[in-house]
Amino acid sequence: MAITIDLNADLGEGFGRWSLTDDEALLAVVTSANVACGFHAGDPSTMRRVCAGAVAAGVRIGAQVSYRDLAGFGRRSMEVPPDELADEITYQIGALDAFARAEGDRVRYVKPHGALYNRAVHDQEQAAAVVEAVHRFDPALPILGLPGSLLLQRAAERGLTAVPEAFADRAYTRDGTLVSRRQPGAVHDDPQVVLGQAIQIACQRTVTASSGETVAVDARSLCLHGDTPGAARLARVVRDALEAAGVEIVSFA
Amino acid sequence: MAITIDLNADLGEGFGRWSLTDDEALLAVVTSANVACGFHAGDPSTMRRVCAGAVAAGVRIGAQVSYRDLAGFGRRSMEVPPDELADEITYQIGALDAFARAEGDRVRYVKPHGALYNRAVHDQEQAAAVVEAVHRFDPALPILGLPGSLLLQRAAERGLTAVPEAFADRAYTRDGTLVSRRQPGAVHDDPQVVLGQAIQIACQRTVTASSGETVAVDARSLCLHGDTPGAARLARVVRDALEAAGVEIVSFA
Amino acid sequence: MAITIDLNADLGEGFGRWSLTDDEALLAVVTSANVACGFHAGDPSTMRRVCAGAVAAGVRIGAQVSYRDLAGFGRRSMEVPPDELADEITYQIGALDAFARAEGDRVRYVKPHGALYNRAVHDQEQAAAVVEAVHRFDPALPILGLPGSLLLQRAAERGLTAVPEAFADRAYTRDGTLVSRRQPGAVHDDPQVVLGQAIQIACQRTVTASSGETVAVDARSLCLHGDTPGAARLARVVRDALEAAGVEIVSFA
Amino acid sequence: MAITIDLNADLGEGFGRWSLTDDEALLAVVTSANVACGFHAGDPSTMRRVCAGAVAAGVRIGAQVSYRDLAGFGRRSMEVPPDELADEITYQIGALDAFARAEGDRVRYVKPHGALYNRAVHDQEQAAAVVEAVHRFDPALPILGLPGSLLLQRAAERGLTAVPEAFADRAYTRDGTLVSRRQPGAVHDDPQVVLGQAIQIACQRTVTASSGETVAVDARSLCLHGDTPGAARLARVVRDALEAAGVEIVSFA
Repeated sequence: MAITIDLNADLGEGFGRWSLTDDEALLAVVTSANVACGFHAGDPSTMRRVCAGAVAAGVRIGAQVSYRDLAGFGRRSMEVPPDELADEITYQIGALDAFARAEGDRVRYVKPHGALYNRAVHDQEQAAAVVEAVHRFDPALPILGLPGSLLLQRAAERGLTAVPEAFADRAYTRDGTLVSRRQPGAVHDDPQVVLGQAIQIACQRTVTASSGETVAVDARSLCLHGDTPGAARLARVVRDALEAAGVEIVSFA
Repeated sequence: MAITIDLNADLGEGFGRWSLTDDEALLAVVTSANVACGFHAGDPSTMRRVCAGAVAAGVRIGAQVSYRDLAGFGRRSMEVPPDELADEITYQIGALDAFARAEGDRVRYVKPHGALYNRAVHDQEQAAAVVEAVHRFDPALPILGLPGSLLLQRAAERGLTAVPEAFADRAYTRDGTLVSRRQPGAVHDDPQVVLGQAIQIACQRTVTASSGETVAVDARSLCLHGDTPGAARLARVVRDALEAAGVEIVSFA
Repeated sequence: MAITIDLNADLGEGFGRWSLTDDEALLAVVTSANVACGFHAGDPSTMRRVCAGAVAAGVRIGAQVSYRDLAGFGRRSMEVPPDELADEITYQIGALDAFARAEGDRVRYVKPHGALYNRAVHDQEQAAAVVEAVHRFDPALPILGLPGSLLLQRAAERGLTAVPEAFADRAYTRDGTLVSRRQPGAVHDDPQVVLGQAIQIACQRTVTASSGETVAVDARSLCLHGDTPGAARLARVVRDALEAAGVEIVSFA
Repeated sequence: MAITIDLNADLGEGFGRWSLTDDEALLAVVTSANVACGFHAGDPSTMRRVCAGAVAAGVRIGAQVSYRDLAGFGRRSMEVPPDELADEITYQIGALDAFARAEGDRVRYVKPHGALYNRAVHDQEQAAAVVEAVHRFDPALPILGLPGSLLLQRAAERGLTAVPEAFADRAYTRDGTLVSRRQPGAVHDDPQVVLGQAIQIACQRTVTASSGETVAVDARSLCLHGDTPGAARLARVVRDALEAAGVEIVSFA
């Protein structure tokens, strides 16, 4: 049986006059596109273009849902009451789904963005709110998130498909969690290390922690970053290396 | 065969802490609810509540789409490029549809709001953009608008159902158009005049112009205003008067 | 020497089509107007009108600064990096100051709103950010806040005037802090209790805690709520009762 | 007497995560910085940084005021009632002034952006609203705009200093107006043409129209574009060429 993995990246993270992600290049690499839905980024025309490109490229469309925070790019954690948060997420999924359907497909999964992603790792109420919104929209939609997060636990408990992801360019602790970005060495700069970690995650389902131990990492998808200079090129190289290692790149959704 | 007419009103026109329309009272009167979708009013939680109330009351849910203009309540005409406008409308319909579906129904029609409503009367490009967005979302969705407007003409040409509406509380010219709000007497203050005009529109398909002539008015729906003091009560009285006159109140959608 | 106290209330908390506070009635009662600056409420035209009214009434204009959160009315706590928060506050003070100066006065003090007010009670970084923004704008501007808060401590340490306020309609604990709004009895419903507490705060600098003890309360200003039904009338009654008790109502700013 | 001209460019046109203009490079070239004030671009932290950089570089700070339209980058003309427009402009000037003053300077002039710039060329009410807002803020502030525009006429009539600008990279008609961007050849691509036109405007106060005639152009400032690739470098070259031609580059403000 072939080893398979999904590649996901954030796309459509511009807004109006501003662009950020190289959507065209990323669509040629990933199998799952986390499309910004207007709350942290993503104007309607960009959403349409990314959906059209994703359908043309056979890439799955996911709703990258966020706090309502354009000024902070969704990176500022917010105390949103759970009901309100669920409604804000429903709104975003619905908006994206209209573009996906207009292009002949539909939203295939949901992934929280930025501060909401991080908060749903440990915040019971907000994790439950995300799950509730997805369940309400379509109980068949998977949620993509961090292995071990409350978000994926709640999703599984509610009967949703919980899809864990790993990072090729982030350092891991011996506990299998990510080294905080505030620590030195949290992000791998060396492309060879990134490639090696990608292949190790896909083929051995492990990473080498920064402390040296080999640690199990359960991941059905690899998250590639798309908003840094050279990101799209690195993503291409990672995909090529995975395929050269015999890994089949297929979406989970 | 019974005389029938639809009653529509704008609902859910609050935003966060602010409320405007008496949604509960209006849902007991109208058959079609024009629900604000977040661009001129309408936060996600209000959208959910109004959709839930509409489904419970058997009221049809329509997407009241607008320019992106919270500060101006969608009343400031904007030069939005047609493609961009179509995308902004698609976004709004999709967002509302998610709430309608979560409550077991779906968006049943589309009505432009405020400045977009007025502009789509005479602006070829913007009228076509609204029609394009609706067609793209679902070619079976009717568009509700002003009789004789370019919007309804384009809708019909594109194969959409064009639903003309009339106003019980607005004065009409001998041409069958609305007296401009800048003119004195543009809005009927006297409830008896409003009731009389409502019945005349429903039963005789005419209005009495401010100049005295009887003028034909083609309308499948009566628009009731919901954002003025006493609006919900007046709407109730109009409905009662119509029913007393033997008119059956049924949605077009 | 006469007993004096300031009366402050939130004003201008509408946005565009939406209104909330009865600004005209409140301006006839308070001596200090906390004017919303556009981030949680307060469109520019409302800001101008309130400033004009305040100057006409001899009421001091304060900048009611908030997180950038129109949808949540500034009631959702946010993890805003301190530098960014200070800049967002500077922006708001400057915007309001333009209207105050156009009317012949200027911003006289600053009071954080909602979640920012509550957070600056205990969050070192955010309290310091508010203080920094005010100091940068004008080191002579007082900050109005909760007695014992980190905000007022930091303000005093930085050389700013820290003005403590108390609440006539909120229950206090034996520690002199406010009973949480989640507890029953947190807000006094009985106008007589409100009047009594107002006079007690002004004349004796104490409150009667919900547990029965008499507790010292250091306050140079009484905060009157303006966004509830009947709020303006209650505010009027409080002022009349204070004056009848011989208290002189004068602004601190 | 030396020939002098001012160089102005739009700066700070990012928003939060998004950047657009190379502010650092432009501040080394221009004498007047049109700083975005938050309505079409320009988050508070960017405003502070640009003001700090401008003061450090001896560049004059101007308020680049816009319609409230982040999604459309202020490029969509809007029917804003004049009083409301004046208030929105006052708000923006005040906000920027707070940052300018925190850095030891102040707003020195006002220039409308995008659709508002274009509309104030011919729209009486909106031109008057801009002038009113500037006059209200400070009657000593110049307005920078298009020669022959209603904006500059109204400004002069109201006693404000009206500063006309010209464009080195735009083609002109024989009437001395700009060739519409919808026409081919509206923007000069050839850097040599841009340099030549800059020098001709500065030294001879003329341009060569696309039809070949030499046309008088009254300009105290040259507008350099900052939001295109290579813009900052071209701006540098234009400045060097002007100085080599003996033109002194000094701000009008």
